[in-house]
Amino acid sequence: MNRISKSFFPQWLTKDQGDYGTVISTRIRLARNFQDLCFPQAAGPKEQEKALQRIEAFTRQNVQLRLKLQRLQDQDETQRGLLFERGLISMASVQEPDKIALACTPGQNISLLINEEDHLRIQVMQEGEGLTTALETAQDLDDSLGSKLSLACHRQFGFLTACPTNVGTGLRASVMLHLPALALTRGIVQMLKAVLHIGLAVRGFYGEETELRSVFFQISNHMTLGRTEEEIIKHLAGVVRQVVEREEEARRILLKEKRQLLEDKVGRALGILTGCRMLGLEEALDLLSAVRLGMETGVIERIKKPVLNEMLLLVQPAHLQAFAGKSMKAEEQMAWRAELIRKRLKLGKKS
Amino acid sequence: MNRISKSFFPQWLTKDQGDYGTVISTRIRLARNFQDLCFPQAAGPKEQEKALQRIEAFTRQNVQLRLKLQRLQDQDETQRGLLFERGLISMASVQEPDKIALACTPGQNISLLINEEDHLRIQVMQEGEGLTTALETAQDLDDSLGSKLSLACHRQFGFLTACPTNVGTGLRASVMLHLPALALTRGIVQMLKAVLHIGLAVRGFYGEETELRSVFFQISNHMTLGRTEEEIIKHLAGVVRQVVEREEEARRILLKEKRQLLEDKVGRALGILTGCRMLGLEEALDLLSAVRLGMETGVIERIKKPVLNEMLLLVQPAHLQAFAGKSMKAEEQMAWRAELIRKRLKLGKKS
Repeated sequence: MNRISKSFFPQWLTKDQGDYGTVISTRIRLARNFQDLCFPQAAGPKEQEKALQRIEAFTRQNVQLRLKLQRLQDQDETQRGLLFERGLISMASVQEPDKIALACTPGQNISLLINEEDHLRIQVMQEGEGLTTALETAQDLDDSLGSKLSLACHRQFGFLTACPTNVGTGLRASVMLHLPALALTRGIVQMLKAVLHIGLAVRGFYGEETELRSVFFQISNHMTLGRTEEEIIKHLAGVVRQVVEREEEARRILLKEKRQLLEDKVGRALGILTGCRMLGLEEALDLLSAVRLGMETGVIERIKKPVLNEMLLLVQPAHLQAFAGKSMKAEEQMAWRAELIRKRLKLGKKS
Repeated sequence: MNRISKSFFPQWLTKDQGDYGTVISTRIRLARNFQDLCFPQAAGPKEQEKALQRIEAFTRQNVQLRLKLQRLQDQDETQRGLLFERGLISMASVQEPDKIALACTPGQNISLLINEEDHLRIQVMQEGEGLTTALETAQDLDDSLGSKLSLACHRQFGFLTACPTNVGTGLRASVMLHLPALALTRGIVQMLKAVLHIGLAVRGFYGEETELRSVFFQISNHMTLGRTEEEIIKHLAGVVRQVVEREEEARRILLKEKRQLLEDKVGRALGILTGCRMLGLEEALDLLSAVRLGMETGVIERIKKPVLNEMLLLVQPAHLQAFAGKSMKAEEQMAWRAELIRKRLKLGKKS
């Protein structure tokens, strides 16, 4: 149980450099479709297979990209669950994997998702705030694809997509933020309202379907039309910078005026994580958030950053089950989750 | 902060022998009044002073009893608070100490309370279930007092007391029980109803005024008339034995069928107690109860018994303030309570 191969985790999550920071990760997605095929929802199996084979051929012709293609129906539900929990496929694809495929780099930083909502989605994940570099990576791959395959692109509207909300750039740029101090000082609601007001979207830890109960938030662009990719990124990055400043200000205030409250919250979280024997997912995320806040504000000894990052994934159902090597009911998952965190927190202490 | 003189605590609380057990302590009280003086509520200062001087003379004439008399008005509010929290005086006497005095043995096992509700109350505290021996101790002292002083006693009714509910034997026998497993398995309500139904009283941790929110309960006799002291004790002891059996049965069931739930509860409690930086009284008692349950059921390493017993007192406001050597507001008390428990839990680990 103690030894997990580093390659089990996506590469962007396990970097041991830099600070923890308020921004956990950045995600760039470009939606693309083939000019001569129906959109996946309308396409029959033959057309879907065609789309799939074109990307398969592309990956074979571009081995330097190290994209390994896997059809989702060849994987079991837990393996697909892993991909969902890493933000690479949707929950719908976990349930109905037919004709859907994912081509990934070994570290899962770069991937192509085939036959989900669109024929093709270019996805780039990156640790911390990396909107500009992630966009560049995605654009390079888009250029390669565009030079070899005929993509549906309208002279006036730009790239055409299955859902009209993606037409134009096909870009969804999102940033996962950890905002515990704003949540503690109750500045969070006002801040989220402001973000929504200027046309950005806010989601919970698990994307579209999840509530905003936690202190982890994804902020992303809504608009894909009428702006260039660079403008969208610039706008989002500016907002993220402001949110981060607010969070940092809230942390300074906490440290200055409510240090005891902060130390209490962090100490309790660490105490429960090391002491409990059953742990639900939501509680786990809340407690890990408090520990993270404790380390970032220096009120507790630092734990190795990758260990804490990895735990955000490991506590989730599919990761837990993949790790345990068996399918588990909710109660057994709670026991495993508790044990896993306890052991890894011990491991994670900086020596 | 780490060193507290053992003599700070009442002797009955710090014995390091025997098991933890479900019964924490036993208390015997005999209410007595002088034949020729008005009851304290009706008496003027002169009569109250007379009552006081008679007991003072008695303690001087019986030095072998080692009763040291102190007038409550000579003590500060924190010192009186200590006596309240140890069950030796009422909250009313903390607020209005005039003419009230307490004569105690050095270990506070035996005491005489003067001019509270009655002229005299003989009080005996003992660790664990000790109804018979505590009654014997109280009766010996009662005999000594009765042989030298004229006590109000009616041929038919027995001893006369300020409140009619104490007439007869003047005896209140009570036992402090710790019933966490019954509380966890929800058998507690039914059990308490049954105890009330057979004519016994149930109170919370702090006596008459407190609610039954905790898992610490005092069970005592209601009836003082028409039965001998021995009959009252025998009845109470029988009920206590049954309650203890129910609690032990509930613990066996917990261990057998819900060990994980038990380990989770205990582990979380220990985690919070060692991690928190602010702790309220009620939460402290709940968490200490869980730790105690954990040790008694063997799911965690044992902590020295006196350390755990002492903490039940130390977490209370007057004890905290006496210990800190200063008066503190609620928030500061919470911080001290957390620190004190953390340090003493470290100390208390059996080597």
